[in-house]
Amino acid sequence: MMIIVMKKTATKEQIEALLRRIKRWGFETHLSTGDNKTVIGIIGKGETLQERAFLAFDGVENVMQVNKPYKLVSREFHPEKTIIDVKGTKIGGKNIVIMAGPCSVENRDTVMEIAKAVSSRGAAILRGGAFKPRTSPYSFQGLGEEGLKILRQAADENNMSVITEVMDARYLELIGKYTDIFQIGARNMANFTLLKEVGKSKLPVMLKRGMSSTLQEFLLAAEYIMSEGNESVILCERGIRTFEQYTRNTLDLAIVPAIKELSHLPIIVDPSHATGRKYLVAPMALAAIASGADGIMVEVHTSPSEALSDGAQALLPDDFGKMMSSVDIIAKAVDRTV
Amino acid sequence: MMIIVMKKTATKEQIEALLRRIKRWGFETHLSTGDNKTVIGIIGKGETLQERAFLAFDGVENVMQVNKPYKLVSREFHPEKTIIDVKGTKIGGKNIVIMAGPCSVENRDTVMEIAKAVSSRGAAILRGGAFKPRTSPYSFQGLGEEGLKILRQAADENNMSVITEVMDARYLELIGKYTDIFQIGARNMANFTLLKEVGKSKLPVMLKRGMSSTLQEFLLAAEYIMSEGNESVILCERGIRTFEQYTRNTLDLAIVPAIKELSHLPIIVDPSHATGRKYLVAPMALAAIASGADGIMVEVHTSPSEALSDGAQALLPDDFGKMMSSVDIIAKAVDRTV
Amino acid sequence: MMIIVMKKTATKEQIEALLRRIKRWGFETHLSTGDNKTVIGIIGKGETLQERAFLAFDGVENVMQVNKPYKLVSREFHPEKTIIDVKGTKIGGKNIVIMAGPCSVENRDTVMEIAKAVSSRGAAILRGGAFKPRTSPYSFQGLGEEGLKILRQAADENNMSVITEVMDARYLELIGKYTDIFQIGARNMANFTLLKEVGKSKLPVMLKRGMSSTLQEFLLAAEYIMSEGNESVILCERGIRTFEQYTRNTLDLAIVPAIKELSHLPIIVDPSHATGRKYLVAPMALAAIASGADGIMVEVHTSPSEALSDGAQALLPDDFGKMMSSVDIIAKAVDRTV
Amino acid sequence: MMIIVMKKTATKEQIEALLRRIKRWGFETHLSTGDNKTVIGIIGKGETLQERAFLAFDGVENVMQVNKPYKLVSREFHPEKTIIDVKGTKIGGKNIVIMAGPCSVENRDTVMEIAKAVSSRGAAILRGGAFKPRTSPYSFQGLGEEGLKILRQAADENNMSVITEVMDARYLELIGKYTDIFQIGARNMANFTLLKEVGKSKLPVMLKRGMSSTLQEFLLAAEYIMSEGNESVILCERGIRTFEQYTRNTLDLAIVPAIKELSHLPIIVDPSHATGRKYLVAPMALAAIASGADGIMVEVHTSPSEALSDGAQALLPDDFGKMMSSVDIIAKAVDRTV
Repeated sequence: MMIIVMKKTATKEQIEALLRRIKRWGFETHLSTGDNKTVIGIIGKGETLQERAFLAFDGVENVMQVNKPYKLVSREFHPEKTIIDVKGTKIGGKNIVIMAGPCSVENRDTVMEIAKAVSSRGAAILRGGAFKPRTSPYSFQGLGEEGLKILRQAADENNMSVITEVMDARYLELIGKYTDIFQIGARNMANFTLLKEVGKSKLPVMLKRGMSSTLQEFLLAAEYIMSEGNESVILCERGIRTFEQYTRNTLDLAIVPAIKELSHLPIIVDPSHATGRKYLVAPMALAAIASGADGIMVEVHTSPSEALSDGAQALLPDDFGKMMSSVDIIAKAVDRTV
Repeated sequence: MMIIVMKKTATKEQIEALLRRIKRWGFETHLSTGDNKTVIGIIGKGETLQERAFLAFDGVENVMQVNKPYKLVSREFHPEKTIIDVKGTKIGGKNIVIMAGPCSVENRDTVMEIAKAVSSRGAAILRGGAFKPRTSPYSFQGLGEEGLKILRQAADENNMSVITEVMDARYLELIGKYTDIFQIGARNMANFTLLKEVGKSKLPVMLKRGMSSTLQEFLLAAEYIMSEGNESVILCERGIRTFEQYTRNTLDLAIVPAIKELSHLPIIVDPSHATGRKYLVAPMALAAIASGADGIMVEVHTSPSEALSDGAQALLPDDFGKMMSSVDIIAKAVDRTV
Repeated sequence: MMIIVMKKTATKEQIEALLRRIKRWGFETHLSTGDNKTVIGIIGKGETLQERAFLAFDGVENVMQVNKPYKLVSREFHPEKTIIDVKGTKIGGKNIVIMAGPCSVENRDTVMEIAKAVSSRGAAILRGGAFKPRTSPYSFQGLGEEGLKILRQAADENNMSVITEVMDARYLELIGKYTDIFQIGARNMANFTLLKEVGKSKLPVMLKRGMSSTLQEFLLAAEYIMSEGNESVILCERGIRTFEQYTRNTLDLAIVPAIKELSHLPIIVDPSHATGRKYLVAPMALAAIASGADGIMVEVHTSPSEALSDGAQALLPDDFGKMMSSVDIIAKAVDRTV
Repeated sequence: MMIIVMKKTATKEQIEALLRRIKRWGFETHLSTGDNKTVIGIIGKGETLQERAFLAFDGVENVMQVNKPYKLVSREFHPEKTIIDVKGTKIGGKNIVIMAGPCSVENRDTVMEIAKAVSSRGAAILRGGAFKPRTSPYSFQGLGEEGLKILRQAADENNMSVITEVMDARYLELIGKYTDIFQIGARNMANFTLLKEVGKSKLPVMLKRGMSSTLQEFLLAAEYIMSEGNESVILCERGIRTFEQYTRNTLDLAIVPAIKELSHLPIIVDPSHATGRKYLVAPMALAAIASGADGIMVEVHTSPSEALSDGAQALLPDDFGKMMSSVDIIAKAVDRTV
């Protein structure tokens, strides 16, 4: 269902031309008038029509969609929360899931050390990039398959699952051999061919919100994945780009309860990428849990100042440990467990 | 102290002209060269110089301020947290302060009812607008002095303090007769004449962050007030304007721990104006406390659907009560009290 | 006229409660249903209702305003363009008006020099700040009345008109003695008490768009002025705040043709404040004229590197002269004159 | 070269630890002190270091890059403008290049009609999408190879070149068979694997600025392509995402002269996607030329209200023709030809 407001100056001919077209597309219309303006209601499955298409007609002032343009991700059509089971770790249930690890996989020893450190402090899922999207072509680009092997081994030795980013559909099969969850990074949230490919996969997908993506676009990107058959989608808020540049991005925590209202999918928060400053990570992790997030993803490094990427935001294991104690308390305060 | 980077193409004459000028202004300079670029360090009290002024010189590529441009608000110069005492309610200490009340003062009975409701549920400070800034000239503009009287009476009968907005220096004296805290609204954060006037007052001032104000501009606005002698400044984050419009504004909670690092002033969060949607208020209030805020300001109304302004975001007393129970638990979790 | 979309889960009671309230407010309603959603049309003068107010009702999903919330500034109600006559200079007609001068009035000699320079190169209106809004309390704050006198004299000696900023209603009378046009700065665009005061004045007002103001809010601010009786309002685009910080602000030139479609008021562009970099001023001035602007406001200084404020963006008289030659050519290309 | 500002509270040990590390990385350092703050200059090829990496060190307050992080795209290292020759059409020279055509290729007849219409009115390059990135999975996704064939034929019959989008490295070879210029869309500006692939190609690449990409990130994305050996990169401004939503995006025209200062690459402007409203396209096209753009890309459709995507912003051939007459005049005004 859609509503079209005609300009005050719209002619009878313009209105009729529009009505004919809508009928030709197979929709019914409903006309009303007020304050000298004609308003046309289009009745039928609105999600197949595009708001902007109607602005092309002469005499049209504004167009408004009544229905939400997504369906599979919507709580309207799927009222119960989705719980995703990753080797026994439930994401989206009462339990708060902790994903932690280095920004990128740099060498075996460091990853082993970090995996052990975060596992022993409560993390169930090991994060780490083997293929890195980097703004500059001169930055470290990742270890590739070698990195995936290290990640897998480190996770296995510590009874953890693996999450790692897939940036290109061509590597999907390769990465799928090593990971338990595919991560779609913020830069690829609107890479629709990639979304479709992971949609055909059987593995859970964690979709990070694009830096300039609205809530609706974020949910539509998840709809892309689900519409290919993959129902195991985890959403992840990691900050949006705004004029404020003291922090790397602006963490939009209000999206957490909003997503819980609009969708049944689990929502994770990444305070490391969002803030880009170490001392802000723990307070934002606690705030995320308090706002209702189903988990957090945090960068931890045993030697942040040696990290080849994003060291500035990585916590030391001990800081991570301290944060976990507080996470535990806040989780209980909102009736969750870690 | 400032650092000026000259263009690769800068001539000797351009560099010398700049050095002469800086010396004439009473500063010392320090020259260094690297990668074929000349870098000039200016030594002296940088806060009296303007970064942009140097871009006017031919040959200058970039200018960087080494020192922060504010001083009085800075934790560097005032390491202990400021605690402001408003009739016994301490703002900025261990205690979380709760400010609650209607968006605007509409009539005596409603305000009395609301004051009683929020006071009995833990609010120490009564909020309410008597003079309202409204985007449209056709919206309700507030009751004026009559509203102030109602607010004062409602607070007194419930042993609360009053906070209300001052929009114009001409009303400062009048409003000062009734209120305990002056509120400077987001739209007036950069109204420098108003900032100076409240800076001369003896009453505490709560300064709301402007919708498009950076962290640094926010602190500079507080510096304006303090530089006139008023040391009782409370900061308030209420959301910034971004491309995301599902929420009214984007609540920038990372600013809370950032302000605690950079400044000694207390920081309050207003989740009502930030989100503009009732169901998001409580989760964001809890997130604010978890992130380290010194208090929250919440709109409460006994009949939101009758409210003449901003009803959509006002909580019912019972919802406020439920929120307060959770606030209590979260506060304890971060070692605070309500 | 307004349209309210109810949630799919809205109960009959919720819908009826809302209908009763709307009727009590004196409006008629019109109900329709599609895709299992109820849509309520409210018939009557929508501009007195607030969209957000309806979100307070249980069961409401979304609210859409059919009518524009402004009237006096709207081209719907006033199809002919407004032309404002300032001592013979027509703003909003075929002629492109040039406002030029220093950012702030610093001393008599410099202003005299600048006025002569810009006048002889085609500027009809002299700009200059006597009271300056400054982000830092430690920056130069302006000469006050002395500055106004200098400005008036410099204009008179060169047969120019004066435009200068009024930041505080208390100075309106004083400034009114010296200026021909009141300027409301971007920081005060939403200072509604000030808007009302200049609305009562007889002098033309140039209203600068707020840094984070939408097109609609900009027009509503102009409506504030007009609703007090002052019909001589000039709009001025000066850049909005975005994530891009290479330029001081992002000049939103598309607003120029948009304003010409939606409103009858003249629209001026200020490329100096928008870009903050000297070398970008002339290209953006030309682009502004090409996009349909009725004039430009440009900072010119005889010695930018000595300027006490915003020297970085001020043109030298010769650069201004060169720009004016191009402005002349572009103006002719779009069938305007300078 | 980089500059690191230490916190006032930084200890001697922290400073020394940092100095040791920098030396270990092979750089020289230069220490200076002012206002009680230590400033470290790092001497060497700064572009291989990351600003954010230094924030990970204890005691570091701020880090500033002196050198630009890009090189191949920079005018510093390549002062003459790049001119790209596409089958005789020169992009980046004195001539203004016009790219026009439908948003997406829908059927042979329409494309033939449009190609003829735009060619006869001055367009040299035919645009059209065969593979479409769409926000909703339920929108029209493009004709694929069939669309490419139609586009090629339409271009050949009208003596035009073809530009079309490549969204996925897997289709590069296929699309390369039909197109003369690869277009990288805004959503893929930070798809670094795709950038590298087109960087290995011999065909020119037009890179659209990402919706939330800064000027520096835009240039770095072009650097990715050039660093793989492809020197024929055309930049395209198509609007950024801001809070203003009357227009689809905010066209950032100041980036045009900025890019001409910082880079030698040609810059094209797309006013159709930027504004999303038909009546704004021509004024913004003229403004683009006036600001110094090397060309424009415009959507034209013979029946916009039948278009399956983005009809709202497509011009009719006659409107395009009228626009071209004005483009011609403005081009001459800025000493260019069409």
